[in-house]
Amino acid sequence: MERIDLAEKLNRIPEPWRPRIVGRVNDTDLKLAKLDGAFDWHAHPEEDEAFLVLAGTLRIEFRDRHVLLGPGDLCVVPHGVEHRPVADSGETHVLLIEPAGTRNTGDRVTDRTVEAEWI
Amino acid sequence: MERIDLAEKLNRIPEPWRPRIVGRVNDTDLKLAKLDGAFDWHAHPEEDEAFLVLAGTLRIEFRDRHVLLGPGDLCVVPHGVEHRPVADSGETHVLLIEPAGTRNTGDRVTDRTVEAEWI
Repeated sequence: MERIDLAEKLNRIPEPWRPRIVGRVNDTDLKLAKLDGAFDWHAHPEEDEAFLVLAGTLRIEFRDRHVLLGPGDLCVVPHGVEHRPVADSGETHVLLIEPAGTRNTGDRVTDRTVEAEWI
Repeated sequence: MERIDLAEKLNRIPEPWRPRIVGRVNDTDLKLAKLDGAFDWHAHPEEDEAFLVLAGTLRIEFRDRHVLLGPGDLCVVPHGVEHRPVADSGETHVLLIEPAGTRNTGDRVTDRTVEAEWI
């Protein structure tokens, strides 16, 4: 029951592609992340994943098309759908909304797999 | 897997205090709402509720204190905690994140109780 200032939290995230948890709503996590460049293709077997762009531009690539998101745009990627987040116009800030325990690299473990920590 | 433009959705909400669903992440709803004035005191018996302020100012009153939120501020109200959202500095826009089926007036049914519809 505190005020959570997303900009202040983002200032304390030093690196891209390492989401940090800022809130939990029952079994759903609210995570902040900085994105820069292209991530790896992946899918989350059971977890839907919402991206809300706070700053910058995000292209979410699917195997057959893509969506382009700017500040104030939201996209929900359903579970099981392969996707690749790409921020190739500079650093992008997003709020992720997804079930607690969702792995950032989905069904794969790579050198970019991280366990989200609270910030 | 579409781009959801929150500003465009908000433009189509004519009245305050009637949240509209814009996305679903597993069993969690993402809802947009316009707030204006004071709402009713209520608690959600089992549902946590996150408020993310997109525009304007929101005061969430609790029985013993309050939090003041501006654009880019988030607050999670745990289930069972009585609260009263107040927007007394003009129309305020929020994104609500809460379990699907959460009633806007919580454990009470009043003349402001509405079933959230998709927009």
